[in-house]
Amino acid sequence: MKPDESRVVYEGRVVTLLVERWGDHEREVVDHPGAVVVVASDGDGSLVLVRQIREAVRRELLELPAGTLKPGEEPLACARRELREETGYGGGRWRAGPRFYTAPGFCRELMHVFFADGVEPGEAALEDDESIEVVVVPAGDVDAVLREVEDAKTLAGLLLYLQERA
Amino acid sequence: MKPDESRVVYEGRVVTLLVERWGDHEREVVDHPGAVVVVASDGDGSLVLVRQIREAVRRELLELPAGTLKPGEEPLACARRELREETGYGGGRWRAGPRFYTAPGFCRELMHVFFADGVEPGEAALEDDESIEVVVVPAGDVDAVLREVEDAKTLAGLLLYLQERA
Repeated sequence: MKPDESRVVYEGRVVTLLVERWGDHEREVVDHPGAVVVVASDGDGSLVLVRQIREAVRRELLELPAGTLKPGEEPLACARRELREETGYGGGRWRAGPRFYTAPGFCRELMHVFFADGVEPGEAALEDDESIEVVVVPAGDVDAVLREVEDAKTLAGLLLYLQERA
Repeated sequence: MKPDESRVVYEGRVVTLLVERWGDHEREVVDHPGAVVVVASDGDGSLVLVRQIREAVRRELLELPAGTLKPGEEPLACARRELREETGYGGGRWRAGPRFYTAPGFCRELMHVFFADGVEPGEAALEDDESIEVVVVPAGDVDAVLREVEDAKTLAGLLLYLQERA
């Protein structure tokens, strides 16, 4: 499955915008390298979340730790790196969850979900343009926190986690 | 909260790409009018899904009915319209669920979730560039179908639906 024509109209640092011709219609397509999201729990079953300003939506959001794949990077390696950089947490037992497209109507971003149990605290190492507050959520508070979540990957990740444990 | 500078680098039919300066860093931002997704169940508790080709990701995907807000359109009106156009189903009792950003790291799309119970079949009215197969999923098969889902809004919508009924 491929377009009759695909042209780059803007090549950015993170996203590239394409205009594609498929038969008799045109599609605007946002290309993206893909990303990871991590549902990490510590030895007490508390979950590790992050609160950060999301300039794109002019809001501070509560999210699961996540990040964009670097060129050639394996999703699991990216997930371990992002969890460590954003929160300091590391170690634990990891396994891959499902993958999903965040906005398949117009965007190629594929999100890889990982679950990490028994992670342990350490020192974060934020990038220059990141400012992140780590929020540790006790197991019993996850339902309440869910009602505050306004991010697709976080909603899906937390609901998958709760469903598995039910 | 607003950028020091925001310039349009491409204005498309559905998405607009902005490059914004926030303090000492730049952000690529995909602007988008927002969208709706509908978890609709019929009198038997079966759910109404759609299978369609998503050119952006070069795949056929199984999704909940959904669509983009038209200028000035209320989310509920959009949700009723999209369900009717894509699947023919209408009527029923509607209520608003949560809202979430699909990819808040770089995209302004806000997704409004609606639940519709007791919808009834009718005639679909697809747009020229749409080709959609309606898939009615019996209540008992939702768990199995979840494992096939590779779309964030559908995963979140179905998991929210299952969680409410648990």
